[in-house]
This record gives sequence, C-alpha cells and structure tokens, in this order.
Amino acid sequence: MSDANLWLDEVYQGVVRTGFRLKRRVFKGKSPFQTVEVVETAGHGKLLLIDGMTMVSERDEFVYHEMIAHVPLFLHPRPRRVLVIGGGDGGTVREVLRHKTVESCVLVEIDGLVVATSKKYIPKTASALSSRRAQVRIEDGVKFVRETSERFDVVIVDSTEPFGPAKELFGPTFYKDVRRVLTERGIVVSQAGSPFYELGTIKNLMKILKAVFPVADAYTFTNLTYPGGLWAFAYASKGVHPVRHFNSARVKSAQMPLQWYNAEIHAGAFALPEFLRKAVGR
Amino acid sequence: MSDANLWLDEVYQGVVRTGFRLKRRVFKGKSPFQTVEVVETAGHGKLLLIDGMTMVSERDEFVYHEMIAHVPLFLHPRPRRVLVIGGGDGGTVREVLRHKTVESCVLVEIDGLVVATSKKYIPKTASALSSRRAQVRIEDGVKFVRETSERFDVVIVDSTEPFGPAKELFGPTFYKDVRRVLTERGIVVSQAGSPFYELGTIKNLMKILKAVFPVADAYTFTNLTYPGGLWAFAYASKGVHPVRHFNSARVKSAQMPLQWYNAEIHAGAFALPEFLRKAVGR
Repeated sequence: MSDANLWLDEVYQGVVRTGFRLKRRVFKGKSPFQTVEVVETAGHGKLLLIDGMTMVSERDEFVYHEMIAHVPLFLHPRPRRVLVIGGGDGGTVREVLRHKTVESCVLVEIDGLVVATSKKYIPKTASALSSRRAQVRIEDGVKFVRETSERFDVVIVDSTEPFGPAKELFGPTFYKDVRRVLTERGIVVSQAGSPFYELGTIKNLMKILKAVFPVADAYTFTNLTYPGGLWAFAYASKGVHPVRHFNSARVKSAQMPLQWYNAEIHAGAFALPEFLRKAVGR
Repeated sequence: MSDANLWLDEVYQGVVRTGFRLKRRVFKGKSPFQTVEVVETAGHGKLLLIDGMTMVSERDEFVYHEMIAHVPLFLHPRPRRVLVIGGGDGGTVREVLRHKTVESCVLVEIDGLVVATSKKYIPKTASALSSRRAQVRIEDGVKFVRETSERFDVVIVDSTEPFGPAKELFGPTFYKDVRRVLTERGIVVSQAGSPFYELGTIKNLMKILKAVFPVADAYTFTNLTYPGGLWAFAYASKGVHPVRHFNSARVKSAQMPLQWYNAEIHAGAFALPEFLRKAVGR
C-alpha cells in the first residue's frame, strides 16, 4: 500500500505538513467552485476537506465552532438575528443556535456541495442546518450583504483561505457592506488565518476593520487541524468592546455543554502573544 | 529521492504526524540514553530531535522557552538561584538569565550529548550555557534533587516525554524532593504534555502536585513543533498564586526583547479550555 493510502497529508506553504492516519476515503466531489472531500481517519473521526485543506475534523471541530460563535454571541446584549457567511458544514450554526435569544440564523454558503456533503457524512456537525431557526441560502455571501435589506445583530464570516472563492471576504468593500447590515450594537467576527504562517493576512484584515469599525481587535484559539495549531479570528464592532463589555455571569447562567469556551477563555483569548499584539497594532 | 529525504516526520500515537521539509541532515549520534539528531529544514531553521521527537525548532523555540521561564520568574518576588532539570539545549537557561536578579542558574542534564550537540549546532539556543552565571552539570536530575543541600527559588523541569530517561520526573518521590530544595516562596514549573493527546499524563501530574504543594495549577501555550500545537505546563508553589500574586508592572519595567510572553499572556495562559479545566480539577 502506498503512503498516500496510509496518510492524508496537508502540505502548507511547501515547508510543513500535517498528516492524519487514514481509515478510508468516503467521498470526493467537484462543484463549480472547488473539490469537496470526506475521509475517515484512525484517530480524528471524519475530516471534511476543501481543495485538499482540512476544514473540519470531528475530533476537534468544537474548538473552532465554539470560539467563532460564542465570543460574539455572549458579547452582544441580545442577539436575535445572526448571519453566517460560508460555514456550510453547519458547525457554526449549531453553536449559534445554542443561544435561546436567537430567533433566526441565516447561513449564506456559495457552494451547495459543501452543505449536502456535510449533511450526509458529518451529521454531528451539520444537523443544526435542519433546525427551523436556521435558513440556508446557497448563494454568494459578498453579493448577499451588498444587496440585502435585512439587518443582523451578529455577522460571522466562516470562510476558507483568502484566495479562491473566499478572496473578496478579505476586502474593504465587503466589510463596508457588513457594517451596513449590522444593527446598532452589531458585531462581526471573521476567520483570519495563522499568526505563525500568515501574519500578513491578519495585518491586512485588521487594517481594513480599523478603517471601517470603531472597535477592532483579534483573538486566538488552538486546534489540531489547522497548520501550526494557533489560529486567529478578527473581531470588529460598532460599539461593543470584546473584554470590557463582557459579562462572565451570562456564560455561567447559560449552562451550555461546551468543551472549549468558558468565561476565562473569553478574556484569555484576547491576550495576544507579543509578536501578534504588535502586528495587530494593539 | 525518497519521501524520507524530503520530509522529517514525527508520528504521534500512530494517528497523526507533523512533517518539516528537509534541507539536509546535519548530525546524528547515540548516547547511552538516547539518539540525538540535528536536521536543517526549509522553513523552520534547524531542529533538535531526541529519539525522533522534535525538541527544539529554531523558528519557534522562543514560545516554549519564554513560557517555561518567565511565568515562574516574574512571579517569584526575587528569584536569585534557579535550577533547570533537563533542557540541555540551553533555551530555558537563556530566558532565565534575562532576569537580572538571577545570580546562578544550575542546569542538570542527564545526557552530555544533548548539551554538546546543541552548543555546536544550535548556538542561538545554547549559547547562554557558556554564561558565567550558568553552571552545567551532566548528571541525573532525580538523583541531584534527592542528594543536594543547595536551595533554589525556582525549579524548572524541562523534560522530554514521561517515558525513557525522563520517567521518574513525572513521579511523586521526585516532587517531594523538589519541595525540599525549594526556598520558602519557591515555585516549580514542569513540561506536562499535550492536552488533546495526553490528558491522562496531565491529570496524574496535577494529582501529584496537589498532594505535595499548597498551590498547584496548569497553563498552556501553542507552538509549531509539538503534536497538536497546544501544550501544557504544570505549576506548583509553596505559596505564590500564579495569577493573584502576579504584578504586571514588573514585566513592563523589565523591557526584555520577548516575542511571545507579555503581561496579558501571563494571565491568559492560565485561562484553560473547559475540557482541560475540568481535567486539572480547577
């Protein structure tokens, strides 16, 4: 058996790779946008891959999804309407819907194949997409925020890397539109890349957010599937400061069955390593 | 060229591997204890490996060494004498000696080959071992703390994994000896493994520390070279609480040229992910 049958490797920037021991390849399909793949691994459950990059592993997707969702949702005074752009695997929607104040969560995913594949093969992550409070739209998120007349309390940009179909999600025009669709105390959180390997991406995104929003910052988490472990989210808001306006009592009283996020982690995640603190200009 | 000439892979628990793109193999030697190896990589500088496990990468060793050294040294009211057990690469000693109060740092490394190899091939990490304030002893650290009449303000257990030569460094007898050699407000910090992959090791270590010390806790950091990125240190003390007794002003006035550790990170590192918080019994 060749090595490619034993290991599913993601090579990153040509210099580092993370490999997961394979049990079997489950599905591979091609959409107009990208290749979507599911494999089963020996130690990390099923993985969802887009163009060869791991997006979700069943073993640790809770970290990413808890951190992208609960940071803005526990900060907003009363989140009722939430917009998720990308995130067709459904994990972010699952965490958003744990908040009882949320009446509706709109998911705008450009690629229907991501949604269909996740629903079929990774139901633990995707099942929330069938909730009556979730509304799935297969369309371009950039176009959606440009044209919609709806308003949202929280916008979550759950994108892939800043190239290919997600490229515009890292640009200034998009964030001006996000500001427009946000309500008065609105918050936006965005996947921002690897501090070790993509510091330039984070710097650019922070520059854009600072130009568009009165409050802009970054926070981090660590998981098993993204290169280098450490990963960043960008945070911006029309007026909610991510640490000073945080009420830790809300987390305790919500009593959610979480594995990563808690009140300490909320504040701790905004404690940035010195090289990253400098890069985001804090 | 075969794959083994292109990538230096560390396979972990049979289910995951991290590979660094190789430029060349620099050195390989065998001591009575283990195999010691140096390779040069395309994107991460030189790596030091022990029995095939990456111990140090030039690109990001600052994270581990800053976090193992500055957390206890900025907490202790006036650290003068420091003991490092293991850590023959010298990175921890380098960070310890940035503290001007430190008069002497004793390094007790069981394997002379680790020290010699690091000095020759990774001088950026190892050069502090030649400082007049550093004293290098090639002997068994367990035996040293059992027999010495010296006393230390801070003990740093900079060990490899809890098997092979380092096994006893994870046991209760060793930590009773550490308590004995610590001064009145003494602090010990120990490499504790991967929260994702070795939660049992961390639990055991915490149980031992809680039985031996009035203050016992854990903190985390993330780097590129250890499996899963996220890594834990155990913290114990005769009386210094790691967050309540922390004086952030000391960090600012020290003006050290650090890349990871800062006053925010100190407190943030003790914010544990929910599954780890439960495991350490906080």
